[in-house]
Amino acid sequence: MPVISPPDRAVHDLARQRLYDLATPPGALGRLGELAVWYAAAHGQVPPPQLDNPRLVIFAGDHGVAGHGVSAFPPAITPAMVRTFLAGGAGVNALAAAHGVAVRVLDLGVDDDLVGVPAAVLAHKVRRGSGALHLEDALTPAETERALAAGRQVAAEEIAAGAQLLMTGDMGIGNTTPASAMVAAGLGLPASEVTGRGTGLVGDALTRKQELIQQALDRTRDRLDDPMQTLTALSSADLAATTGFLLAAAEAGVPVLLDGLMSVACALTAERLAPGATAWFAAGHRSTEPAQTLALDKLGLEPVLDLGMRLGEGSGAVAAVPVLRSAIAVLRDVALLSDLQPGG
Amino acid sequence: MPVISPPDRAVHDLARQRLYDLATPPGALGRLGELAVWYAAAHGQVPPPQLDNPRLVIFAGDHGVAGHGVSAFPPAITPAMVRTFLAGGAGVNALAAAHGVAVRVLDLGVDDDLVGVPAAVLAHKVRRGSGALHLEDALTPAETERALAAGRQVAAEEIAAGAQLLMTGDMGIGNTTPASAMVAAGLGLPASEVTGRGTGLVGDALTRKQELIQQALDRTRDRLDDPMQTLTALSSADLAATTGFLLAAAEAGVPVLLDGLMSVACALTAERLAPGATAWFAAGHRSTEPAQTLALDKLGLEPVLDLGMRLGEGSGAVAAVPVLRSAIAVLRDVALLSDLQPGG
Repeated sequence: MPVISPPDRAVHDLARQRLYDLATPPGALGRLGELAVWYAAAHGQVPPPQLDNPRLVIFAGDHGVAGHGVSAFPPAITPAMVRTFLAGGAGVNALAAAHGVAVRVLDLGVDDDLVGVPAAVLAHKVRRGSGALHLEDALTPAETERALAAGRQVAAEEIAAGAQLLMTGDMGIGNTTPASAMVAAGLGLPASEVTGRGTGLVGDALTRKQELIQQALDRTRDRLDDPMQTLTALSSADLAATTGFLLAAAEAGVPVLLDGLMSVACALTAERLAPGATAWFAAGHRSTEPAQTLALDKLGLEPVLDLGMRLGEGSGAVAAVPVLRSAIAVLRDVALLSDLQPGG
Repeated sequence: MPVISPPDRAVHDLARQRLYDLATPPGALGRLGELAVWYAAAHGQVPPPQLDNPRLVIFAGDHGVAGHGVSAFPPAITPAMVRTFLAGGAGVNALAAAHGVAVRVLDLGVDDDLVGVPAAVLAHKVRRGSGALHLEDALTPAETERALAAGRQVAAEEIAAGAQLLMTGDMGIGNTTPASAMVAAGLGLPASEVTGRGTGLVGDALTRKQELIQQALDRTRDRLDDPMQTLTALSSADLAATTGFLLAAAEAGVPVLLDGLMSVACALTAERLAPGATAWFAAGHRSTEPAQTLALDKLGLEPVLDLGMRLGEGSGAVAAVPVLRSAIAVLRDVALLSDLQPGG
């Protein structure tokens, strides 16, 4: 893995100084000030550029474990939602349209041939469905490499399209199970600490989900110190691609606004693969999944929004875009104290 | 006081049903769903209209108590900031420009003649500075009436200008002292529970501020059951006007996004004057002031944002506008489950 360079320290300090010099009391902007400094440093520019081109990529895929009672929804929802994204009718489409975010959806591992869907959506497909991780590896090592490379390539394309901010979204029934397992592996925690209700699991099904995650962790215990092995054993084509996408963004020095559990589980894995990657990440929202909060704590990230969302799709990151724009506007457009005429 | 009618229950139920019928799992939108239902009900329209005309009015005024060590800043900052708002250089100006919010600033009680400032800004001035509330009433009863009426008139003007959402902002060195006293009066709490650091108070000054608030509460103890007397004794021209503005918005059935402590202290007082007013209010952000959280809890409101902001000016409400727009977009633009073709 290439070494990740941090954002330019001198620019960071310049941004912090400008924040201090604004015609606002020190610290009065709270987290908006911190976000603005992060974004300016990531862009190497004080004041930072306006955020005119934020871009979201939704990585879709199915998970063998979804057939084993870990989700409130049937796997057939995954291809249906890919079509809904393409038709512009999903939650994230409405948010993205409201906030001027470009959305791209890619099938990395949907368990359906998606007949009639544009070829570009299917161009990076690694396999139909990923292995049921409590019984077998989610991917072969070669598939892991292919998925990572696909994510990297997609990030490069988005950056070539002028992305000033990248975001990842997820679609795949059952995907909180592999993502929770990835967090457990990354933090060395048992399934009992990372397992949540996903999009709507109730009652005994939660226990079942926890048991399957623990079974997966037990099955692969001696390999989880290695983040590549973690991806092969416990992730999926879409989550490995998401990890590659985040790695490429950090390597290229393009800031990322993370979404919920899937995005953050992949960010944690990216940090394991390439220490320092997290300097390029900010957290868009706090999801209702305990594993997301655990991973964010490990990465030292505090979410912008905490609205009890658990939709996935990248929706939490997109909802945080205008808050980041608020931060940018403040650092760009507020008068400097030194420019005010004393006494008016 | 006129009785406040709640938003139409049938429209509220219709909005909730539409939320449930969206192609998103029930509850997955979290607080965005709740906000969307509130806004739709307030507008009597499902799906709700786009939020194209949100309007902020900043009520500026000085406070006699500011000369007694309750603020980290000198009172001369108040008129200087009025000029900064008019020049477009303040924090709230940058946020409002970023999010398409109309900003109007009015001098209700600045302790300065503001020579050269447009007459419209000064048209509602009640007095120069308000009384030092620990020693004397902040206003005369006649001034309280005038300030309330001014706020009502301004709200009517903003509504006539097509406001789909109203917000209040504050400017006035020392204003967290009267606002905290108003909350203490409204909730029957001692100064020790409501006093915070304002924009930047440190050390012993916090104790001094608490003592002055308690002195004000003790001085007026037998009158604080009456919200009109509370305004006269403990508020200020700008805060009484803000209260009138909020009352008029609720009476007219125009939704309001509240800001920090000053806005919420006035909302609490409006609710005391006209029970039910709160149905027309949502909370934009959680400030760092304990009195704001106490008042929000009493009103049953949960803020949209929690970013550690303590700038005032209406900045927290304006920062929450795009999150409200996210909520509206979801309820307007996400496909209905019934419109999706099963199986794609």
